Amino acid sequence: MRDVTIIGVGMTPFGKHPDRSLIDLMLEASYTALMDADALDAPIDALYVGCMASGMLCGLQNTATLLADELGIKPQTAERIENSAASGASAILNAYLAVASGLYDVALVVGAEKMRHLPTSEATKAIASMTHPEGERPHGVTMPSLAALLTRLYMKRYGLTREQLALVAVKNHRNALLNPYAHLRKEITVEDVLNSRVVAEPLRLFDCSPISDGAAALLLAPMERALEFTDKPVVIRGVGQAVDRVMMTERDDLLTLKAVKEASRRALRRAALSIDDIDVVELHDAFTILEIVESEDLGLFEKGKGGIAVEEGLTAIEGERPINPSGGLKARGHPLGATGVAQAVEITWQLRGEAGERQVRDAERGLSCNISGFAANAVVIVYERGW
Amino acid sequence: MRDVTIIGVGMTPFGKHPDRSLIDLMLEASYTALMDADALDAPIDALYVGCMASGMLCGLQNTATLLADELGIKPQTAERIENSAASGASAILNAYLAVASGLYDVALVVGAEKMRHLPTSEATKAIASMTHPEGERPHGVTMPSLAALLTRLYMKRYGLTREQLALVAVKNHRNALLNPYAHLRKEITVEDVLNSRVVAEPLRLFDCSPISDGAAALLLAPMERALEFTDKPVVIRGVGQAVDRVMMTERDDLLTLKAVKEASRRALRRAALSIDDIDVVELHDAFTILEIVESEDLGLFEKGKGGIAVEEGLTAIEGERPINPSGGLKARGHPLGATGVAQAVEITWQLRGEAGERQVRDAERGLSCNISGFAANAVVIVYERGW
Repeated sequence: MRDVTIIGVGMTPFGKHPDRSLIDLMLEASYTALMDADALDAPIDALYVGCMASGMLCGLQNTATLLADELGIKPQTAERIENSAASGASAILNAYLAVASGLYDVALVVGAEKMRHLPTSEATKAIASMTHPEGERPHGVTMPSLAALLTRLYMKRYGLTREQLALVAVKNHRNALLNPYAHLRKEITVEDVLNSRVVAEPLRLFDCSPISDGAAALLLAPMERALEFTDKPVVIRGVGQAVDRVMMTERDDLLTLKAVKEASRRALRRAALSIDDIDVVELHDAFTILEIVESEDLGLFEKGKGGIAVEEGLTAIEGERPINPSGGLKARGHPLGATGVAQAVEITWQLRGEAGERQVRDAERGLSCNISGFAANAVVIVYERGW
Repeated sequence: MRDVTIIGVGMTPFGKHPDRSLIDLMLEASYTALMDADALDAPIDALYVGCMASGMLCGLQNTATLLADELGIKPQTAERIENSAASGASAILNAYLAVASGLYDVALVVGAEKMRHLPTSEATKAIASMTHPEGERPHGVTMPSLAALLTRLYMKRYGLTREQLALVAVKNHRNALLNPYAHLRKEITVEDVLNSRVVAEPLRLFDCSPISDGAAALLLAPMERALEFTDKPVVIRGVGQAVDRVMMTERDDLLTLKAVKEASRRALRRAALSIDDIDVVELHDAFTILEIVESEDLGLFEKGKGGIAVEEGLTAIEGERPINPSGGLKARGHPLGATGVAQAVEITWQLRGEAGERQVRDAERGLSCNISGFAANAVVIVYERGW
């Protein structure tokens, strides 16, 4: 298979876009990525859209074909990929394969979701559609309730404090303040987190990612053609995906996200790298606890030590193991299908040295982790400077 | 890229399954395909689900991961592919690429839709979600109304008679009578079609495919491993996809489905075959007119001659150009995401000589055409005996 590179990236600000349609958000992200690669006139061979719930949320199917139509392009393939909250990373994977195989050269990947136009109850109903339809949903299980169960158990087993957990949110809000694309650009304190309203004890509002609108896009090309478009191609060095039992209660170890562990192992093995070679990481912190547990399952920290790492500042932009310089899902926002693509956009900016005030110094290699359901499916991508 | 083969196939009967869930239908099709390949214990590397509207119709996302969980398998990848009514063929395409590229060996493809549990108005609302959200839907445009416009124009331009059109339905019902998996197993006459109620003048109820539940599955493996599983592997010789403008009114020629034309040209070119090499064809006859127009755009007949070809019996099982021996969407039924996979299942049975009373004599090569929206996106696959 051929080496595949990211030659252009773009995204809309994440947040509220009451006056714009799903397709409109996708268009902005697409054009920004195409302009970034100076490829507005380049033939696009393939279009992959990552979107979780265009049907439930916007009454739309066929979104990839609609987007091609609005862009005025005639790709040889146009598909939507759905892997719930990891739809974005899954769209990257399918596009990666299409280019790596040699079938197509230039592929546009667009992740998007529009959620804020509906009442919160409708948006959360769509979010809950990723729980198990028989074993979880009928019993009132929601994503926050699963995160709360995990948090309680983790606090009990490893002595994580409520303050350490809050520090994940504090850090990610601080980072987002430096990210013009972030949804929540507001500094917060540990007290703010602890005083915010309870969502599912012990998780509070500021432990949870917001409901956001937004889109992000990548343009991919084989390494051999990358320099036609950019002098800073970012190579997709390895991809990995894994599945686990859908219901958390069926899993071997409640405090290990096996899909994350296995997907990162696969991606790093294909990249011929170890986690210690990675300079910057974007994780799926839909809830504060997830950033901690994922950081351990990736091997950044020992199991049970993720909370201390945050407290010690190791995961800050200037720390030894920077996590979510973008602000993460917590503060950049979480338009479901857009998230995985936005992670790749952030890593690209970081490796190119274009991340402005939130730049991780000398970042040469990055990793992103996007999960579906409550980590029933995980997608990990490893990136490296290609110049 | 490696040659990819179909090593096992299976499907549920199409029709009404009031007591079964979407996942349950997928399980039956999956197990049948796995048993067909004697592969119940084989490691499955990848799972691709084609389903148009699991969200809108069943409140489910993450269906590929759910299916893996229920099957008790741990594939390295699990994705749902959505390309509206061509989601099934698109799932085959993505799985094909995963195997052809060398990344994975054994891939399971499952197409499914569950629609009959909802009131018809809800099901048709989901179907209408594939029309253009601004240019068509707000003006009351539905799939039957587009088909009716196409039919009127075609009748006027080429002199197609109402009786010729009805003969498409009569033939496909006759074929379905020989197909134990078909939804509508009832012989009908031209009079029955002409006396059925008007859906959108000049189309009547019997010109339209029914709303069906059902699932179909394929197991894919590289040619080099096919004989481990079967002595009759069917090779996927070429795949082709193309997009067109979403709104019919924006197209260059209203009577040509350009996406079908282009997708079949690509698939046949990759297969190094011409349409005259093809012995059996499964087309997307969601409406009777579509079988006629697609048969012309594939090059089976000259433009304007498709109706006469039906009248002369050329498209019958025993004719020179057998089309839809399965009964097609019209009579086998049309559970949206299942259709593209069911087409591949039928072609596999035909090439293996396992199609029973509806067997096309000496069928060595086949072709399927699955369309999305009103042919805004088309997927064509060319198959050949691999033994």
